[in-house]
Amino acid sequence: MLILGLDPSLTCTGWGVVRVDGPRLSHVANGQVSTNAKSPMPERLLHLHDALIAVIETYKPDRAAVEEVFVNKNPQSTLKLAHARGAVLTACGRMSLPVNEHSTRLVKKAVVGTGAAEKQQVQAMLKILLPLAKVSGSDAADALAVAIADAHLKG
Amino acid sequence: MLILGLDPSLTCTGWGVVRVDGPRLSHVANGQVSTNAKSPMPERLLHLHDALIAVIETYKPDRAAVEEVFVNKNPQSTLKLAHARGAVLTACGRMSLPVNEHSTRLVKKAVVGTGAAEKQQVQAMLKILLPLAKVSGSDAADALAVAIADAHLKG
Repeated sequence: MLILGLDPSLTCTGWGVVRVDGPRLSHVANGQVSTNAKSPMPERLLHLHDALIAVIETYKPDRAAVEEVFVNKNPQSTLKLAHARGAVLTACGRMSLPVNEHSTRLVKKAVVGTGAAEKQQVQAMLKILLPLAKVSGSDAADALAVAIADAHLKG
Repeated sequence: MLILGLDPSLTCTGWGVVRVDGPRLSHVANGQVSTNAKSPMPERLLHLHDALIAVIETYKPDRAAVEEVFVNKNPQSTLKLAHARGAVLTACGRMSLPVNEHSTRLVKKAVVGTGAAEKQQVQAMLKILLPLAKVSGSDAADALAVAIADAHLKG
């Protein structure tokens, strides 16, 4: 069973694929897709969408997982995030990939053991859970965390 | 010059195409794309995206126009709207269609003459500006209004 974790963002979308084999978890691949802030929004969204299609075609995951989104203190950033999420989820729809959503709290709890974990604790735990992973950056790390949480939460 | 007005929404996205011929404005087509509220989000977004691709392939507009979005009193609805907008703008990106954004206020001002116009005033004005249009519904009407506003504002 392969799970694709996603951390959508207009600037840089992280993705990570993990393999679940009964109780065993292993790293398959991860990466980040950046867009040019100077390009028009439709072009940036298309780039995210097409890059995700390529990732799904390459690794053929069985399902995807993404963090829930809510409007936070910066509504403009949240709006941009939701646009990126729309483009990325459209790619999952195109590839008939089911998508699970998990709250940030549940992701942290599944990976670190506490829903109040700091970003650094999540990244440190990633190194223990996926020792062979060479992580592309913090967005890819977040995507791998969602994938791991999905494996724990959905089996 | 053909302008495609868009009124994205996850439940029902309106679209409308108008022709601008110097100072003359005429109706070409309009419609609405509904999605099944019981379907998973990626499937609904894909449906919007693909329907918009079909509209753009059919009418070959020169540019698109959409209202700006901001977080209002109902953040959850705004988030859904932004996802739909992401899927729809990805379709514009795929078809290399430039997209202009206008505030609701400017759209109302361009169509009715005042930025504080009621929805009914906008729809009444549409009947005057595009007398031959048979409008599919209020979302298609909003899309036509954005297209008209874009013609006025961008020439």
